[in-house]
Amino acid sequence: MTKVLCVGIATLDYVYAVEGVPRRGEKYRALDLVVIGGGTAGTAAHAIARLGGRAMLATRLGDDPTGDAIVAELEAAGVDCALTRRFSGLRSPSSAVLVDPQGERLVTCYADVRTPDDASFLPARLPQGTRAVLADVAWVTGARRLLSAAREAAVPGVIDGDRVVDDKSYFDLASHVAYSAATVRALTDLEDPADGLAKLAHSARNWLCVTDGEHGIWFTAKGTIDHVPAYRIAAVDTLGAGDVFHGALALALGEGMTERDAVGFANTAAALKCLRFGGGRIGAPSRAEVEAFMRRQNSA
Amino acid sequence: MTKVLCVGIATLDYVYAVEGVPRRGEKYRALDLVVIGGGTAGTAAHAIARLGGRAMLATRLGDDPTGDAIVAELEAAGVDCALTRRFSGLRSPSSAVLVDPQGERLVTCYADVRTPDDASFLPARLPQGTRAVLADVAWVTGARRLLSAAREAAVPGVIDGDRVVDDKSYFDLASHVAYSAATVRALTDLEDPADGLAKLAHSARNWLCVTDGEHGIWFTAKGTIDHVPAYRIAAVDTLGAGDVFHGALALALGEGMTERDAVGFANTAAALKCLRFGGGRIGAPSRAEVEAFMRRQNSA
Repeated sequence: MTKVLCVGIATLDYVYAVEGVPRRGEKYRALDLVVIGGGTAGTAAHAIARLGGRAMLATRLGDDPTGDAIVAELEAAGVDCALTRRFSGLRSPSSAVLVDPQGERLVTCYADVRTPDDASFLPARLPQGTRAVLADVAWVTGARRLLSAAREAAVPGVIDGDRVVDDKSYFDLASHVAYSAATVRALTDLEDPADGLAKLAHSARNWLCVTDGEHGIWFTAKGTIDHVPAYRIAAVDTLGAGDVFHGALALALGEGMTERDAVGFANTAAALKCLRFGGGRIGAPSRAEVEAFMRRQNSA
Repeated sequence: MTKVLCVGIATLDYVYAVEGVPRRGEKYRALDLVVIGGGTAGTAAHAIARLGGRAMLATRLGDDPTGDAIVAELEAAGVDCALTRRFSGLRSPSSAVLVDPQGERLVTCYADVRTPDDASFLPARLPQGTRAVLADVAWVTGARRLLSAAREAAVPGVIDGDRVVDDKSYFDLASHVAYSAATVRALTDLEDPADGLAKLAHSARNWLCVTDGEHGIWFTAKGTIDHVPAYRIAAVDTLGAGDVFHGALALALGEGMTERDAVGFANTAAALKCLRFGGGRIGAPSRAEVEAFMRRQNSA
């Protein structure tokens, strides 16, 4: 099993199914409620385990029942939480997520402001056999430490560039950056994510891609910008799709796939996730499901 | 202590402090999170206990940790939960509440669809010494049983008419109905709540009032509509203010106050609640606070 170390945020999500995402400060009734693990790094680690990788998760939690639930669920899925630190008196991160039948979602994330930034409890070198590191933007101090270790070990260091961070040099630390369309727009002031990516690629030394939902993925390839279209699917729930994409991308790169193949693999894993309700956990596909889906698409 | 029996919904609320109530399906960060009991009947019962009454709560919960938290918090506040039934395998009600600094709020309530409607576990007669019954619109079957018992015992039966119910004759069962402005608009098609109340009063045999936030309370009095203005206060958090109003109103009527005095008392209790953040629990005022505030206002 290919070992991938994920660093960033893991949460407990309260996912409310609603008839429509609210537009006003009023009272709404939920049709259903699913309480399930979430967070960018936690969901990616879970997806990696589902895809047959060996996922490790470095994250910061409280010693509360919410933290117990987060760790119990990840460990049950096979995620190694040895690098997850529980802090006494801290409240673990949680989110309220409202999802409507069209898959639109409203997410409110809570993280305790007292969460220590210090990353010295993380090892300076990667655990033996680690083939890739995946970092989000929730804990740059911790991510910097493990991305540096990845660089030293000459294994892929992938950043999920979900949003802009204050620390401008952070993205340079990764061998691979997967931006959201919103991040590329914010960084370049260009409306079209492909144009924005070309601008960013101009001064970047690392591989870059940008995911833009149903418009697919653009990525840098030998001095140009290449594109993989999104699958035409009837999305039921896009919650966690980006996290599944990033987990699958890091796993594929860790396995030694080319960037093009890794994007194709991650694109498929994320699409399959969108076909099931319940966020990035219930929806995360297995390796066999991804490979069967790719075969069917290729033979169609 | 005056005994008041509350019947309806009790929840566990996840109250997220946000910079502004969301208007779109995006990702927001919460500044703070308070996990606290809520629900119309639960909050009213809690307010009654804070105001020096003896509150009993008839409600339906699951046998889950959420239900444990709801009961533990109410009992710690002095609410008698002997008529609260826990159902095996059921999930207890909970809500996600987003509150912004202006006090605007977005509430998403979840209640398990499998919650049994049957009210036969409730007594057919009021517990000895009960001086008033307060019912909400969340569980009409249970409320009907206890409002009938209130009528038989010739004690006030108060309905919190927070929204319209399918069962048109339900409101007739109460000696006192406190409507929301939205309910009066829905029932009468009249924009002005005072006009709407006059229309409803025309065919009603019970005492009626309508609460309209900062515009105050209108109520029926000897064939006309009377008005009590709202206090001019800088509201910090209006969450649960209506529930505190209804709890205080039922308590005051149970104590034998006139309707006018009861409205004044309830208006004061609700106003004081709005001065503190944390929903209807942290904000619920004590009897001494309400009386001191009324004295200061009268002497000003």
